Amino acid sequence: MRNFALALTALAFASSASAQQTPTSPSPNVILQPPAAPPTAPISAEQQRTVERLQRAALESDLAWQIVEDLVVEVGPRLAGSEAEARARDWAVAMLREQRFTNVRIEPFTIPYWDALREEASIIAPSRQSMVVAALGGSPSTPAGGLEADVVRFSDLAALEAATEAQLRGRIVFIDERMLRTQDGSGYGAAVAKRSRCAPLAQARGAVACLVRSVGTDPHRFAHQGGSSRQAAGVSLPAAAISPADADLLALTLERGPARVRLVIEADIRDNAPSGNVIAEIRGRERPEEIVLIAAHLDSWDLGQGAIDDGAGVAIITAAARLVRDLPRRPRRTIRILLAGAEENGVHGGDEYGRVHAGENHIVAAESDFGAGRVYRFRSRFAEPALPYARAFQRALAPLGILPGDNAANGGADTGALRQQGVPVVDLSQDGSDYFDYHHTADDTLDKIDPEALRQNVAAWATFIYLAAENDWTFRAT
Amino acid sequence: MRNFALALTALAFASSASAQQTPTSPSPNVILQPPAAPPTAPISAEQQRTVERLQRAALESDLAWQIVEDLVVEVGPRLAGSEAEARARDWAVAMLREQRFTNVRIEPFTIPYWDALREEASIIAPSRQSMVVAALGGSPSTPAGGLEADVVRFSDLAALEAATEAQLRGRIVFIDERMLRTQDGSGYGAAVAKRSRCAPLAQARGAVACLVRSVGTDPHRFAHQGGSSRQAAGVSLPAAAISPADADLLALTLERGPARVRLVIEADIRDNAPSGNVIAEIRGRERPEEIVLIAAHLDSWDLGQGAIDDGAGVAIITAAARLVRDLPRRPRRTIRILLAGAEENGVHGGDEYGRVHAGENHIVAAESDFGAGRVYRFRSRFAEPALPYARAFQRALAPLGILPGDNAANGGADTGALRQQGVPVVDLSQDGSDYFDYHHTADDTLDKIDPEALRQNVAAWATFIYLAAENDWTFRAT
Repeated sequence: MRNFALALTALAFASSASAQQTPTSPSPNVILQPPAAPPTAPISAEQQRTVERLQRAALESDLAWQIVEDLVVEVGPRLAGSEAEARARDWAVAMLREQRFTNVRIEPFTIPYWDALREEASIIAPSRQSMVVAALGGSPSTPAGGLEADVVRFSDLAALEAATEAQLRGRIVFIDERMLRTQDGSGYGAAVAKRSRCAPLAQARGAVACLVRSVGTDPHRFAHQGGSSRQAAGVSLPAAAISPADADLLALTLERGPARVRLVIEADIRDNAPSGNVIAEIRGRERPEEIVLIAAHLDSWDLGQGAIDDGAGVAIITAAARLVRDLPRRPRRTIRILLAGAEENGVHGGDEYGRVHAGENHIVAAESDFGAGRVYRFRSRFAEPALPYARAFQRALAPLGILPGDNAANGGADTGALRQQGVPVVDLSQDGSDYFDYHHTADDTLDKIDPEALRQNVAAWATFIYLAAENDWTFRAT
Repeated sequence: MRNFALALTALAFASSASAQQTPTSPSPNVILQPPAAPPTAPISAEQQRTVERLQRAALESDLAWQIVEDLVVEVGPRLAGSEAEARARDWAVAMLREQRFTNVRIEPFTIPYWDALREEASIIAPSRQSMVVAALGGSPSTPAGGLEADVVRFSDLAALEAATEAQLRGRIVFIDERMLRTQDGSGYGAAVAKRSRCAPLAQARGAVACLVRSVGTDPHRFAHQGGSSRQAAGVSLPAAAISPADADLLALTLERGPARVRLVIEADIRDNAPSGNVIAEIRGRERPEEIVLIAAHLDSWDLGQGAIDDGAGVAIITAAARLVRDLPRRPRRTIRILLAGAEENGVHGGDEYGRVHAGENHIVAAESDFGAGRVYRFRSRFAEPALPYARAFQRALAPLGILPGDNAANGGADTGALRQQGVPVVDLSQDGSDYFDYHHTADDTLDKIDPEALRQNVAAWATFIYLAAENDWTFRAT
């Protein structure tokens, strides 16, 4: 999960017909009437029985766990454009065939490659202490042997924006901004701007490098990776994230006087590295040209195992589709699985998919890319006349403990290109309260996934996929 | 905190006059009588007022926090025998003088030095994945360039003990034993045996290296350092600890078939490295030759900051002694602070202190070396006639939420030599429920200390120190 900040910005401009009304205090003399139920598209008794069957099966199935365990154990971290990502594609093709999907294929493309071969930072004065650090994606190398400079700290990005060249020239900028823990990930949108904007702002004022307090919510000694390349095109300043304890240490050192830091980044930067999307389908029995697109991304950052980001998403959508595949009759519409490549370093797979498949009839699209927490909310981004269908999904999902959300869904990074083309999207919003504890760190490991929450996700996705593909509902303005 | 296992073994042989009786169910017809209060040595009204004043002052003081923050920021990790440990001694001398103690001095000694210059482990087949690893203290280097071998897993140490040479020859042994979370640290005593015993057992059966699941209770991607050298004298097998997620990964890989691991350890092993104890005193006003010894250790492992192990202990005992130092009258007896060197790699400082100061009159000794959790229990190790004094301490500590414990105190690693000489010891037992989440990892950082719990520790230690030094109580058999 990478470009949440962009997505949140997009939300600010989204048309929003909120299903959650602000309550007003009734006069005590008024007899309360229950509010009229919003119009909800009916589903047939047979479909209702199928939904119940799918949910029961999902809540008893360990298929999603098996998929993510296999991905972690047999492939592990899979940096965009790397040999490991290529192995992940081969793994995915074999797995999707084994799960009896059709049209399983790789759609290759190339990307700009970036990897950190070496990333080290230490305070060298007043006393020598090494820090836990991760180079930010796209960061150039430091001069051979590293660079050393005094550090100037800013409590947040706004303080850096207000700084002068006199404060920054020849120095390493350190942005010490913290991130707020939230259920829906909105704290990330607020905090992540420093990751992309530090380098261009600092470079324009004559600084020599950027350090940021890791964008994360945990108190542990992990640096959080993350891209800075896409936003910082043309920027030549090395940039890295340090762990929260090291940010504390640097700040406390600076309270006592000047602090000098040494930073070493050796980056492997190449053009035209191989990546690719992996695609699989359940062919629609009546309207095969109508596509319900479900996405997750196959690549990961490489400090951790890529278990929650986004092995979990791969497992959830695949296991859900498999349950639908196993129904006595295939649904009317085609269900297409997109396991996107190279999401983390620039949403290349999603963009490529949107370009290549722009002419097809995508009915709706959604992505699972926010870890493995329970789904707590279903949001749509439908044309106004289609809102009764959103309510039908919500009613079917309610037994899983899922609340109705508004009509300002984001859809996910890899469906962004489709959304921009006007394809309706939905969010099966996951509880991300602890997602940014692990996100893009070495601590993104299999044990962070709760098997029960994973099953609930599969149940929710199976419900959504089935109803979207079995009905003739359309979600666009007609 | 290193040799808890040894201490716990010692406890099994300790004479125990438990203050905590097993309750028996009374007959419903019996009228319950409150139990008679055990005999408790009285303290004077003046002493009672002083105790209350000390406790109030401690609970409002940030001195301990300032001390540990200074140690972390100005020195940081301080491996036994290293230049950083030497800087820590200089720091401690300056700090203890600033806190107005007397006889501040360094008592130097030399130790066998061990450091890991390089420690790497990865699964290389069936697929390549790097693991988070820490070489165990005292481990020899692998052959230059590392070693590679198939792995054989044992669920616990007992399973390794039962293994044959045919199973082990030419292989890397992997002990996957887990540790139980407990308040008093007893889970450590049970789990840590694998750390010292893996190498000798595996070597005797022809294995080429040892890997152990880290001795710890956390679910995070940290390897826990720890000594194996002292117990494993003469053993030449490289040994390392891997993080819990990597132990899971290795176990899951082995469930699928053979797994091959590559291990690289480059150790710096030297004789006669400089270490030393730092000592400071509050000279007794009437009986200066009678010594109340309070200890903590100055060295640390070097992945983390040594904040909870044992910066917290250094801060707690120093701040507590400073409060006593600030009383209108110095206590009758001498209070001596021992900041021991080189505890982690063999309790060298404590042993040296016991050797050099064996002839002195130590009234009682205690160490703070179990993190910064609240003190929840006061235990003694006194001769039977002195138990009323233990109860007097316990009564004075009760307002701080501290329970009476038994008479089987351990006293701590660095007071072990004194204890063996017959010096009475006490434990201000800390709640260590989360201590082994951080112990000997990169995550032992300042933010893991709760300032409020730290103050409560200072209040407890000030109470103990004052009463022990102001009264003429003796705790030995006469």
